[in-house]
Amino acid sequence: MNSRPRSDLLVGFDADDTLWHNERLFTDTQERFRALLRRHCEETIIEQRLYETEVRNLAHYGYGVKAFTLSMVETAIDLTEGAIPGAEINEILDMGREMLRAPVELLDGVADVIPTLAGRYRLMVITKGDLLDQETKVARSGLGDHFDFVEVVSRKDRGTYERLLEAHGARPGGFVMVGNSLRSDVLPVAEMGAVAVHIPYHTTWAHEEMDDQALGEVPFTRLERIAEVPAFLARLENGA
Amino acid sequence: MNSRPRSDLLVGFDADDTLWHNERLFTDTQERFRALLRRHCEETIIEQRLYETEVRNLAHYGYGVKAFTLSMVETAIDLTEGAIPGAEINEILDMGREMLRAPVELLDGVADVIPTLAGRYRLMVITKGDLLDQETKVARSGLGDHFDFVEVVSRKDRGTYERLLEAHGARPGGFVMVGNSLRSDVLPVAEMGAVAVHIPYHTTWAHEEMDDQALGEVPFTRLERIAEVPAFLARLENGA
Repeated sequence: MNSRPRSDLLVGFDADDTLWHNERLFTDTQERFRALLRRHCEETIIEQRLYETEVRNLAHYGYGVKAFTLSMVETAIDLTEGAIPGAEINEILDMGREMLRAPVELLDGVADVIPTLAGRYRLMVITKGDLLDQETKVARSGLGDHFDFVEVVSRKDRGTYERLLEAHGARPGGFVMVGNSLRSDVLPVAEMGAVAVHIPYHTTWAHEEMDDQALGEVPFTRLERIAEVPAFLARLENGA
Repeated sequence: MNSRPRSDLLVGFDADDTLWHNERLFTDTQERFRALLRRHCEETIIEQRLYETEVRNLAHYGYGVKAFTLSMVETAIDLTEGAIPGAEINEILDMGREMLRAPVELLDGVADVIPTLAGRYRLMVITKGDLLDQETKVARSGLGDHFDFVEVVSRKDRGTYERLLEAHGARPGGFVMVGNSLRSDVLPVAEMGAVAVHIPYHTTWAHEEMDDQALGEVPFTRLERIAEVPAFLARLENGA
């Protein structure tokens, strides 16, 4: 039993591929999408064309499964020059709805670490994606009660993090962010002088990829797994 | 110039059809959708079938333009038994993107009232819909700087309002909500003991409709237009 007083530290966690598997859901769906379309067109261009559509639509649609579904429909019509039958568009809509209903599979260690940390720190989920989808994933994860706040945001840049800290009465020096994306979870957080912890996931969506080199001189910590976070935070608080 | 101290009152505004026109964008798009489909099917059932699809999809998709677009695609395939050509599905996707890019047209009085109130009260936008879409509409409205917070929520029930008040350090007695939906902006707010102000809009989406009778005994105030809000708030603060 932990009788220490609660720390003032605010600890943010990215959700997708930090707390639970997500990218593989997109990868599996893309595989089904390719299988559907390979009857109609050259298979090798499908993935690239879908990616281009997704990136072009980001400014309109933002992130998440609904945006991805709309981009799959658009790509399918585009690649088949409109010849794709309605029943196959329906299959694409079903793929999207299945993604929204998919079980939430926690990453190793998460089920132990989050409850442990919740007794000691203020915890937040900070994630992009569809509002309702991310909220229901937090609920379905069984971890909802351990987080003081769930913030679904449309982008993760420095302005977003500054706004969140202000809203929750925290200073950059009292904030730690843990996530798998160098671009979204590490760089903007380190730049504003907060503590950024990178826990790589084995696959990353191309749009989130970033070389360590591109990070330049910003300081951050890389851990192999979430199980290392409690000891890291304890060292941080002891000024080690 | 107003030299009074800033009030502690937190004033929430619904966005769609309270600050700017929205329902007519959906109505116009539905009209285009009917025009597209009437070549393929009985026109009289189109609207009803789209509404049924939207309501069935609410649990998966939540609110907003992306959900509406996906429901239009699904309804079009359903009503044509899959015979709708890809090029027409593309037209539906275009309708959705045009909605996301549509100009933000403020309701009468809003451009004067919001800056006036911002000098005196803490203001919030509290709205459902797509996260990115609602955020960019606040920005495009030119009113963004006048609001202390913009909260896009997946539902507007009592629990949502209670969570928001807690996060922003307000009590129900110090909160006023202004909006056009009895179901979303008035009933849950009045039930938790805060002040609810209803400003009717001339059309309401069927799913948001509610009889005054169904409200039962909860107290609320009905104003004709947003221009009446400053005087209402002044009377409220003077205990009149």
